Amino acid sequence: MAVALTPPARDALHPVPGAKLGIACAGIRKADRKDLLLMTLAEGSAAAGRFTRNRFCAAPVLVCREHLAAGAPMRAIVVNTGNANAGTGERGLADARATCAEVARLTGVGERQVLPFSTGVIMEPLPVDRIVRGLPRCVADLREDNWLAAAEAIMTTDTVPKAASRRLRVGGREVTVTGIAKGAGMIRPDMATMLSFVATDAGLAPGLLRGMLAHACEQSFNAITVDGDTSTNDSFILTATGVSGARIEHEDSAEYRALRDALTDLSIQLAQAIVRDGEGATKFLTLRVEQGRSREECRKVAFAIAHSPLVKTAFFASDPNLGRILAAIGYAGIDDLEVDGIELYLDEVRVASRGGRDPSYREQDGQRVMQRDEITVRVVLGRGSAAATVWTCDLSHDYVTINAEYRT
Amino acid sequence: MAVALTPPARDALHPVPGAKLGIACAGIRKADRKDLLLMTLAEGSAAAGRFTRNRFCAAPVLVCREHLAAGAPMRAIVVNTGNANAGTGERGLADARATCAEVARLTGVGERQVLPFSTGVIMEPLPVDRIVRGLPRCVADLREDNWLAAAEAIMTTDTVPKAASRRLRVGGREVTVTGIAKGAGMIRPDMATMLSFVATDAGLAPGLLRGMLAHACEQSFNAITVDGDTSTNDSFILTATGVSGARIEHEDSAEYRALRDALTDLSIQLAQAIVRDGEGATKFLTLRVEQGRSREECRKVAFAIAHSPLVKTAFFASDPNLGRILAAIGYAGIDDLEVDGIELYLDEVRVASRGGRDPSYREQDGQRVMQRDEITVRVVLGRGSAAATVWTCDLSHDYVTINAEYRT
Repeated sequence: MAVALTPPARDALHPVPGAKLGIACAGIRKADRKDLLLMTLAEGSAAAGRFTRNRFCAAPVLVCREHLAAGAPMRAIVVNTGNANAGTGERGLADARATCAEVARLTGVGERQVLPFSTGVIMEPLPVDRIVRGLPRCVADLREDNWLAAAEAIMTTDTVPKAASRRLRVGGREVTVTGIAKGAGMIRPDMATMLSFVATDAGLAPGLLRGMLAHACEQSFNAITVDGDTSTNDSFILTATGVSGARIEHEDSAEYRALRDALTDLSIQLAQAIVRDGEGATKFLTLRVEQGRSREECRKVAFAIAHSPLVKTAFFASDPNLGRILAAIGYAGIDDLEVDGIELYLDEVRVASRGGRDPSYREQDGQRVMQRDEITVRVVLGRGSAAATVWTCDLSHDYVTINAEYRT
Repeated sequence: MAVALTPPARDALHPVPGAKLGIACAGIRKADRKDLLLMTLAEGSAAAGRFTRNRFCAAPVLVCREHLAAGAPMRAIVVNTGNANAGTGERGLADARATCAEVARLTGVGERQVLPFSTGVIMEPLPVDRIVRGLPRCVADLREDNWLAAAEAIMTTDTVPKAASRRLRVGGREVTVTGIAKGAGMIRPDMATMLSFVATDAGLAPGLLRGMLAHACEQSFNAITVDGDTSTNDSFILTATGVSGARIEHEDSAEYRALRDALTDLSIQLAQAIVRDGEGATKFLTLRVEQGRSREECRKVAFAIAHSPLVKTAFFASDPNLGRILAAIGYAGIDDLEVDGIELYLDEVRVASRGGRDPSYREQDGQRVMQRDEITVRVVLGRGSAAATVWTCDLSHDYVTINAEYRT
């Protein structure tokens, strides 16, 4: 059902020197399914992370924050699917730490040099024993060219593995950026996405890495929504092995900007892939809000449209019932919004202007655009010069089916 | 599909002396369907209204506000279904005014003594000609015992007419309060509901009426949600004919409190009826949040749960995937919420405590409660003494079907 999204070719995913990936079927929730990923990083690697702001954040999110704050170079990432280890209290924390301890023992690094991640059902105990039994197989499988299998291993309700890769020149050296992501439902990232792991062989200090990550996150994972449900486990991790020999020292350098732009571009591709594979999605929608007083108010309008079940079902039905978009703009929370100045476009068609239906608008024009798989909704607020873009999908019967039957 | 909701008996709806109702099939959107309601009020009647805060509010809402502000006694209410007259710009305003003018002409009152209401599709021109042709039939039909037909005439995707009635003694006289409401989708009232009209034959000045209306609204229509979409047309109107001879002069009188409590009780019944008849609803959910620092933060948590598509689909499936409720509590926007103090109950079953699954919780207990048609979700925040209650329904395939096919 994914909208214009196919699995990446295996050889399009460039290995990142210094980063190895190993996969196993650990039987965490279902048998014979890839559900455990171990990623190891060369000595001296740096890492930065952005995490969910959900107050019921998962135990592994708490442990990641603690380990990143400790400041030691990061050496391993471990991810399980099938269980979110969220809403699990003290036991959940102990389980996440036990997972890190086992990875540390097997790979010969410190416990605090391991970052743990989980995704799946909330409020069920993590089967640590199965993870521990699966980890040696991950270790045996560690390879630099294992990105596609890694993308498959972190899928839950995803139907297509999500991965992307870029190569660029930094300071005369070739640098690679490759990343994977997962997510299809419970998607309304707030400072991060479901799970995404990006590695580069450029060398950056953690502080520089954090700034670059924040920039990319804001333009990508923080600009998507499927259903407005912010997950307990959202995490976006950027690691830098430094193995290429290309070293970036300053934020105001051309090298920094080049890598930042490549990372942002790659992150947008991964974020859009999550929306294209949104649970039950049949349409990919770009919501562009322009001429607002601030980026924040443009985002408010875009997210109000993106979260409206009525707008989403109208797109599912290819029904140009576009007054629903005006209603969503109206309740977006901009208290002094004057509707007279607003224009609404559906791709090339002007639908509304001056507070109502545009005189030139004809139902058949709206109908023509609604038939498309990918549609841009453009709202011109006419009160400033800020803009924002958000990506979302429609709401279909399959969304209800998938989420009514998620645990069966 | 409505949850434990049957049409009111005709004779359970007590006439309100001084208020007459007339209905017609005006063919506004569909032929042979009651779609036009006229209500006339005895000389000297007072009215108060609460309206949507949607910035794209409908033309009739703007005209109602203007007429109420003008301060003349209200003498008529006119309601059409099939067209919301919202997102219709200047022409919409002219159409709403033309409707009032025709009612004024037919009933011999001033134009500003008429309140107009519309509900239906947004951003389509109002067929005023059909309304004008239908109005004489409404006039011919005017009767005091026409409340049930009036409730039917304002239905759109509603499957059950919604009306309720109360009788009480005020200052030694018998007073009646009777009201109707409509709404099933695009329900997330913000200061008002879809449409509700309540009349009493007590006598109150508009100022007292407004305070009473605000109190009742906050406890009823502002505590429900179906899909989080705040309508462009939400209106809740209270009229007082004074015909009973019972006069209420002060807010701090026992008479005022008696009438206010009867009105609040009736409003809660009507608001709950909207949720019970929510589009595609198979379950009626009461969300009770206790021990918060403020009523506002309790409402935030309740609405976060009520709006989560994942929580709603789990209830539809009768699947105790209750970690989704914890996730919604976590992203409700209370930045300093400590999850360790939170308890979650499903009817009599304690599901979570101390930040995770309660040690005594068994899946089969959750499963047993999830089978019920009416369920109370109780969240104990453990950080204060405020509380709030919100009512909502589940999200089913029928919601998608109804809204994907709304205009066909």
